[in-house]
Amino acid sequence: MVKKIDLNCDMGESFGPYTMGRDQEVLPYVTSVNLACGFHGGDPMVMAKTVKLAKKAKVNIGAHPGYHDLQGFGRRKITMAPDEVTALILYQLGALDGFLRREGERITHVKPHGALYNQAAVDAKLAWAVARAVRDFDDRAILVGLFGSALIKEGKRAGLDVAREAFLDRHYQKDGTLVPRSQPGAVLEDPEQAAARAVKMVGEGKVVSYEGQDLPLSCDTICIHGDTPQAVQMAKRVFQTLLKNDIRVRPMRANG
Amino acid sequence: MVKKIDLNCDMGESFGPYTMGRDQEVLPYVTSVNLACGFHGGDPMVMAKTVKLAKKAKVNIGAHPGYHDLQGFGRRKITMAPDEVTALILYQLGALDGFLRREGERITHVKPHGALYNQAAVDAKLAWAVARAVRDFDDRAILVGLFGSALIKEGKRAGLDVAREAFLDRHYQKDGTLVPRSQPGAVLEDPEQAAARAVKMVGEGKVVSYEGQDLPLSCDTICIHGDTPQAVQMAKRVFQTLLKNDIRVRPMRANG
Amino acid sequence: MVKKIDLNCDMGESFGPYTMGRDQEVLPYVTSVNLACGFHGGDPMVMAKTVKLAKKAKVNIGAHPGYHDLQGFGRRKITMAPDEVTALILYQLGALDGFLRREGERITHVKPHGALYNQAAVDAKLAWAVARAVRDFDDRAILVGLFGSALIKEGKRAGLDVAREAFLDRHYQKDGTLVPRSQPGAVLEDPEQAAARAVKMVGEGKVVSYEGQDLPLSCDTICIHGDTPQAVQMAKRVFQTLLKNDIRVRPMRANG
Amino acid sequence: MVKKIDLNCDMGESFGPYTMGRDQEVLPYVTSVNLACGFHGGDPMVMAKTVKLAKKAKVNIGAHPGYHDLQGFGRRKITMAPDEVTALILYQLGALDGFLRREGERITHVKPHGALYNQAAVDAKLAWAVARAVRDFDDRAILVGLFGSALIKEGKRAGLDVAREAFLDRHYQKDGTLVPRSQPGAVLEDPEQAAARAVKMVGEGKVVSYEGQDLPLSCDTICIHGDTPQAVQMAKRVFQTLLKNDIRVRPMRANG
Repeated sequence: MVKKIDLNCDMGESFGPYTMGRDQEVLPYVTSVNLACGFHGGDPMVMAKTVKLAKKAKVNIGAHPGYHDLQGFGRRKITMAPDEVTALILYQLGALDGFLRREGERITHVKPHGALYNQAAVDAKLAWAVARAVRDFDDRAILVGLFGSALIKEGKRAGLDVAREAFLDRHYQKDGTLVPRSQPGAVLEDPEQAAARAVKMVGEGKVVSYEGQDLPLSCDTICIHGDTPQAVQMAKRVFQTLLKNDIRVRPMRANG
Repeated sequence: MVKKIDLNCDMGESFGPYTMGRDQEVLPYVTSVNLACGFHGGDPMVMAKTVKLAKKAKVNIGAHPGYHDLQGFGRRKITMAPDEVTALILYQLGALDGFLRREGERITHVKPHGALYNQAAVDAKLAWAVARAVRDFDDRAILVGLFGSALIKEGKRAGLDVAREAFLDRHYQKDGTLVPRSQPGAVLEDPEQAAARAVKMVGEGKVVSYEGQDLPLSCDTICIHGDTPQAVQMAKRVFQTLLKNDIRVRPMRANG
Repeated sequence: MVKKIDLNCDMGESFGPYTMGRDQEVLPYVTSVNLACGFHGGDPMVMAKTVKLAKKAKVNIGAHPGYHDLQGFGRRKITMAPDEVTALILYQLGALDGFLRREGERITHVKPHGALYNQAAVDAKLAWAVARAVRDFDDRAILVGLFGSALIKEGKRAGLDVAREAFLDRHYQKDGTLVPRSQPGAVLEDPEQAAARAVKMVGEGKVVSYEGQDLPLSCDTICIHGDTPQAVQMAKRVFQTLLKNDIRVRPMRANG
Repeated sequence: MVKKIDLNCDMGESFGPYTMGRDQEVLPYVTSVNLACGFHGGDPMVMAKTVKLAKKAKVNIGAHPGYHDLQGFGRRKITMAPDEVTALILYQLGALDGFLRREGERITHVKPHGALYNQAAVDAKLAWAVARAVRDFDDRAILVGLFGSALIKEGKRAGLDVAREAFLDRHYQKDGTLVPRSQPGAVLEDPEQAAARAVKMVGEGKVVSYEGQDLPLSCDTICIHGDTPQAVQMAKRVFQTLLKNDIRVRPMRANG
């Protein structure tokens, strides 16, 4: 059977005069992009521009909503009630959709950002608050969450198609959660190593943990970071290595 | 022929712990509401709540986008390029729509707020930037602008249905523009006087200017303010006085 | 021996067009005010105005710094590193001082706001981050914290004068922490009951807990809320009842 | 007589995860830095760090207050009343001072940013609002403004020491104002040309205008930009060329 995988990248995270990520250079090597919606990054002009860029590249265009915290780039937890989280997501999905409908596009998938993503991986109530927002906005949208996470579980419970995500350049702990960025060696920087991990993930359904053991891991999409110094090189190498190993790189689709 | 008019009110302008306007009390006396979209007022929770409130009241639900300036309540001019203004509007229309689609509703009309409204009344380029955003978002939406304004003109040019707005509690200058709030007597506070003005506006197509002369004025909708001390009393009095004068109060509709 | 106490109130929490608190009416009944610094409430114009108001009333003028979260009014926890918290506080103390020095005044005391206050009551690292900021800004400033809290302890360790605060209108749990606002009955609304609590706190050094038992409690200052419907009546009643019971109401001072 | 000049650079304009300017690399070639205060750029952590950096480099540390507009980087005009502008400035000066006093430093000078700088160059009321804020904050601080501007005039009227600023890499119009950035050729990018302009400015008191004529120009400080691709090279070249031409580069001082 032909193996296949989606490669996704967070984009549109620049803000006003500030540039973040090498969106244009990474685009050729990914099949789905997750666009910031103005709360942890992105602004209306950045969103307008990035939507056009993504449309031209013919990739899936998804939303990447986060906490309203530009200074912390959405990486700081903010305690919010489930209803507040649902409203937070609906607002951002709608805002992004404002630019997509102008281009005749719609939000294909939703991937929460930063602290919201991490909390929704382990907190079922929060995960439900997110899943409910996506379902109420457009039940055709795919919900992207960490493989094995509460978000994937609650997404299914909400009747949504889900995409299980894996990380190339972040280490996994034994329990399948990510090693926090603050820990040494949490982030992998070698494109070669990342590419080999990608092949193993898709080909064998496994990843080597921080502690050195094989962990089972099923994924529908792999995250490519666009804001690191080695981003472009890594994206290219992963993309090419997957192809060389007869793994098809194609956009995630509802129902697989 | 039966005379008819729409009464509109800006709502959902509270923010976090801060309350603005007596939305619930004014609702019975208006037929269209313009909801703040989080930039000059409103936040996702306020928007979620106000959309539900408005739906229950069976009024037209429109968007009230403004400059991104909570401290200045969108009343301070910010110099922005036309493309920036278009993106500003698209973002806010989308954000509001996020809550409306959950309720099976859509944005019936768009009325810019504060400084944006005033500038779009006289600046054709800015007016076009606004009209274009509304058209690109949903060309069924009605664009609301000051009677005689550039916004009405550009809205028509964009192929949109427009609603010409009149103000009960703001004085008009000879040229048909509003007397700035900073000027003494710019704002009328007497419900009786306001109600009489409404009847004259709809019945005779005239308003008495600041300088005391009759000005011709055609309007499809009249603005009722919800954030003044006398807001509820004024709304009620205007509503009742119109009915008493055989003027039908009904929601604005596309194509009149 | 003459008993004495300081009454403090959070003020200057309005923002732009939004009013919060009945500052002017509560002022006659308090001896210290804690002014919001623009992050959870307050803006430069509100700060300028409230500083003038407080100076005229001849009360202690302190800072009331909080998390940068206007929508959540600083009541939501935001995970921040200690260095980030220290910088957060220094910024806000400085900003308030900008207005005080114009009036020939200085910050007499610092009381963290909302979630920051509550976290600094139980988290020693956060408490130290706050205390260090106050000391580095001006070591003559008094640090205000919950009686028995980590903040009081770390403030002393930083070499600061501290003021132990008690709450009239919030219930205490057995362990001396406040019952969360979300719990029923957490907030007391009866001015009579509040006044009696104040007399018992200062006179006997005790408070009746949520569970109904006497808790020992020593306080240098009692918090009067200014943003509730009964705020003015409660402030007045507490003030008068204290006087009637021969308790002197006077501003907190360094070294008692 | 020995010619001398101050070289100043705007710094600390990064924000959260976003980097702006090559502060550390430009520092060796300037004698005064103007630090963003959190409104158009900068955040408490950036400010804390940049103050330490500047102190270590033994340069003048000044404030660079701007409009509260991160997205527009303070380059968009916002209509504000004079009292609002004064409060805006006081807040930002105070906030920066919070970090300086920790290091035993004080604000040596104040240079408004972006649209505020440009408006204060031509609008006497706004210029006075700025000058008054600086005087009320600390009348020892030097006010930096465009040579020939209203800001310089109002600064003197407020009793402040002033520093007349010249721009190397921005073209001048016949009337002495800067060619708007939006115009082609408004910004000079050649370090060689910039260095030659600096020598001519200080040595001859002249600059060649956009239209090609010699304009008289007296300056106490020259602005070095730190956020362009050629920033470091230009700073270095200007610094070295001035020295080679026997012009002393030293920090601006009150009373010349």
